[in-house]
Amino acid sequence: MIRPAAPEDGAAIWAILEPVIRAGETYALDRHMSRDAALAYWLGSDRASFVAEADGQVLGTWYLRANQAGGGAHVANCGYATHEGARRRGIARALAEHSFAEARAGGFRAMQFNFVVHSYAPAVQLWHALGFETIGRVPEAFAHPKQGLVDALLLYRRL
Amino acid sequence: MIRPAAPEDGAAIWAILEPVIRAGETYALDRHMSRDAALAYWLGSDRASFVAEADGQVLGTWYLRANQAGGGAHVANCGYATHEGARRRGIARALAEHSFAEARAGGFRAMQFNFVVHSYAPAVQLWHALGFETIGRVPEAFAHPKQGLVDALLLYRRL
Repeated sequence: MIRPAAPEDGAAIWAILEPVIRAGETYALDRHMSRDAALAYWLGSDRASFVAEADGQVLGTWYLRANQAGGGAHVANCGYATHEGARRRGIARALAEHSFAEARAGGFRAMQFNFVVHSYAPAVQLWHALGFETIGRVPEAFAHPKQGLVDALLLYRRL
Repeated sequence: MIRPAAPEDGAAIWAILEPVIRAGETYALDRHMSRDAALAYWLGSDRASFVAEADGQVLGTWYLRANQAGGGAHVANCGYATHEGARRRGIARALAEHSFAEARAGGFRAMQFNFVVHSYAPAVQLWHALGFETIGRVPEAFAHPKQGLVDALLLYRRL
């Protein structure tokens, strides 16, 4: 069940985001970001945020926003995260499918990811399987804590 | 003379930005953005902002920020604008050269523009002349008020 995030979901969302942010391997966010800063980002007023629940537990979360303002506001941008104890259960895919429907319903014509770390193979594979095309590649865009400088991909999908 | 922007430069910066924003042909910003919102954006605490003066008049302005946080913070991003009465005088080029030096001095290793409207030929030509490469192209990314949906380019340059 995927539903809009409520303020009371803060603890559950942080339980998902904290290890992702602290690892610093997939998102271009400050690894030392505070809980408050992370939740302010993920639940910001410029976006709609959602959580995925199973058996009363929040196992995933995602947000939808316009990737640009003004003349660029018809292209959506999203972020997704799944609980580290709930990987390989198809949650990311479920969040993605939900996000396509929500973005379409919100009038967006396409979806763009600006910064998919190229070395994060599961994400790259999932996005390609879900119909995203690579439309750009930024050389050495991301300082991976274990792999050093790696490229970032721009992915795009019509809705 | 290019120097850091001061709060007193607000009126001069708005005189430059207002026609650019209202035209809505080059920046993905809300065409109806208020003066306060535009200045809050251009002079935001996440960036360093500059103005170019000649004969005591502010004829151009630009800002420098990290294009991403965390592992992406070594790549710079900038925005530039010149006064509509001072075009074709090399001001944009001077701002650009200044921005490369400032970004290098700030420790950035590369510069990336995320959203260069493809139909805005003078900008595309200038960036290519200054060593930027096109590393991505987003189809129909920008709703141009006269030309309809046009592509946006991602440009990149090592520093």
